[in-house]
Amino acid sequence: MKYGFGVDIGGTTVKIAWFDQEGTLLDTWEIPTVTANNGEQILPDVACSVQEYMVRHSIDRSFVIGVGVGVPGPVNGKGIVNMCVNLGWEKKDVAGELQALTGLPVKAGNDANVAALGEYWKGSGEEYDSMVMVTLGTGVGGGIVVDGHLLHGAHGAGGELGHMVLNRHETQRCGCGNRGCVEQYCSATGLARLARERLAQEQMPSLLRGKDRLMAKDVFDAGKQGDALALAVLDTYYDYLGEFLADVCAVIDPEVVVLGGGVSKAGDILLEGARRGYEKFCFHGVKDVRFTIAQLGNSAGSYGAFKLVLDAYG
Amino acid sequence: MKYGFGVDIGGTTVKIAWFDQEGTLLDTWEIPTVTANNGEQILPDVACSVQEYMVRHSIDRSFVIGVGVGVPGPVNGKGIVNMCVNLGWEKKDVAGELQALTGLPVKAGNDANVAALGEYWKGSGEEYDSMVMVTLGTGVGGGIVVDGHLLHGAHGAGGELGHMVLNRHETQRCGCGNRGCVEQYCSATGLARLARERLAQEQMPSLLRGKDRLMAKDVFDAGKQGDALALAVLDTYYDYLGEFLADVCAVIDPEVVVLGGGVSKAGDILLEGARRGYEKFCFHGVKDVRFTIAQLGNSAGSYGAFKLVLDAYG
Repeated sequence: MKYGFGVDIGGTTVKIAWFDQEGTLLDTWEIPTVTANNGEQILPDVACSVQEYMVRHSIDRSFVIGVGVGVPGPVNGKGIVNMCVNLGWEKKDVAGELQALTGLPVKAGNDANVAALGEYWKGSGEEYDSMVMVTLGTGVGGGIVVDGHLLHGAHGAGGELGHMVLNRHETQRCGCGNRGCVEQYCSATGLARLARERLAQEQMPSLLRGKDRLMAKDVFDAGKQGDALALAVLDTYYDYLGEFLADVCAVIDPEVVVLGGGVSKAGDILLEGARRGYEKFCFHGVKDVRFTIAQLGNSAGSYGAFKLVLDAYG
Repeated sequence: MKYGFGVDIGGTTVKIAWFDQEGTLLDTWEIPTVTANNGEQILPDVACSVQEYMVRHSIDRSFVIGVGVGVPGPVNGKGIVNMCVNLGWEKKDVAGELQALTGLPVKAGNDANVAALGEYWKGSGEEYDSMVMVTLGTGVGGGIVVDGHLLHGAHGAGGELGHMVLNRHETQRCGCGNRGCVEQYCSATGLARLARERLAQEQMPSLLRGKDRLMAKDVFDAGKQGDALALAVLDTYYDYLGEFLADVCAVIDPEVVVLGGGVSKAGDILLEGARRGYEKFCFHGVKDVRFTIAQLGNSAGSYGAFKLVLDAYG
C-alpha cells in the first residue's frame, strides 16, 4: 500500500490530509496560512508540515506517492498559478516549488476544480463518468470532470462558472469587475441580495422583515414555513440558477450536476427548485441531466488534491 | 501505410472521403441522402458506396482502419444516435449498424463536433491543445476539443452552444422550442433578423433598404461601405456574439476559438468585431483566448469523422 498528501490552501488556513492509495482519509490537520510578504512562507510551511508528519510517523519516502495541492486561483495543467489575490501570489510555479521543497512529486489545481475532482472520486459523482460541480457559497465556483479528467483550462480558468454573464443589464459590479455575473445572483450573497431588494420593493408582511443581517439560510427557512415573500424570492433565485445550469449543460452535457457550498445545505428544497428552473430553460437534449447535492463538504478539496497526484504518479 | 473513410451525413447528401493515416485527403465523392422510410436506406447506401470503392480500387481490407461518421443529431460516446430529425431516425446504433454492414470498425459523432475535430486536426486548431469551434450558419453549432479529445457529452449533446440562453425575455421561439437561444441572434439568420428589425425601427437611409431577401452577407457588405445602419446592426451582433463566447470560455477556457460557417466568410471584420464584443463581457482569466477563422470549410466534417476512427483503431 502507498500513501500521499492532499493539501487545500485557503485564505486563512491550509488543510492537510493523509490518504492511502484507495482514497481512505487516514489523518487530517490544519496550519495557518501566512499571507504576509506576498505569501512567500505558505509553500515552505506546507513542506515543513508534510515532512514533520513523515518523520513523526517514521514514514519512508518510498511509500509516498506525492503531494496534491488545491489553490484559490487559476492554475493551469502544469501547476502554474497566475495571480492568487487571497494569498498574495502573482505568477508562481506551485508544483515546481513545492516539489523542490519536499523532494516529492507534486500536482496542483484550482481549489474549486480540485473539490469537483474530490466529489467525483469519493462523493456524489462516484457513479458517474462526467460531472459538473457548482459551489454556491459566498461566491460561485465550478469544476468540470469529463471522462475522469479535470478540465483545468488553457489559462487555468476552466470551470469559472461564477463569472458567466447572466444579466448584461445589471448595474452593480461583481467582485471580478464585470457586471451581471452568475455569482451576483446564484451565490448565498446573491440570494440574500435578491431578498433585500424584494423586501424594499414590496409592502407585504414577511418573516424576513427586521432581520439584522439577512442570510441565504433565512430565506430557505422562511420559505419552508410558507412565507409568501420568501417563496417569491426563491422562485426568482431558481430561475437564475436554472438558466445558469441550462447554459453550462448545453456546453458540457454532463451526466450529473452536483450542487455544493453553503446554499446546498438547503437540500431537497434546493434540488427541486433548481430542477424546476432548469426545465424552463434547458435544451431538450440535456433534459435528462441529473442533479444532486455534494457529500464531502470541506473535505472535497483534500480528496481531489490527493487524487490529482495519485492520477499522475500513483 | 493504412487508410480509412470519413463520412459526413447531411440532410440532402452524404459526403464520403478517403484518407491515408497521415490525414491526406486522397479522394472524395457524394451520394444522395435517401430520407424516405425513416431514413432506413442511408446506412446501407453508405456501406455499399464504401465497399464498391474498395472493390473498384482493389483495396485489401487489411489496409483499412475503418469508417468514421458524422451525423446531424446527438450522438453519444458509444456511437448511438438519439433522434435525428433531418434523417428520419429515432434511436439508432449508427456505429454498430454500419460496422455490421461493412465489416469495418466504425466510430460516429455529431456533425458539428466532428467538424470541430477536423479543424483541430488539420485546420485552424492544428497548433493548439484545446479548442472551441463555433459554426455560424443557418443555425449555430458548436464543438469542443480538450487535450485532443472531443467532448461528446453524456447524452450526445456536448457543445450544443447554439441553444444556450442569451435572452430569456425573447418573445419569438427558436427551432428547438425554447426562447432566446444563441442561435436566434448569432446565426446568419439571426444577423439578418437583427437588420430587418432595425430597418423597421429606424428612419435613416441605408443600403440595406429595399432588398428582396436580406442576408447576413449584405449587412457585412454594407458595413464595409460605411453604412451607418449596418454598422449599428453589426455592433449589436458583436455584443451578442461576444457575450455568448465569453460564457463558453468561462466554462471551457480554450486556447483558441475557431469561427466557421457562412458568417465566418466575413473574415477579419468579424474577428475584430467578435473580439471587441468578447472583451466587453469576458472574465479576466480568459482574456487571452485567441480567435481565428476556420480553414477547412465543408471538408471539416470528413476530416474529423476519419480522425474519430483513426484515434480509436489507427
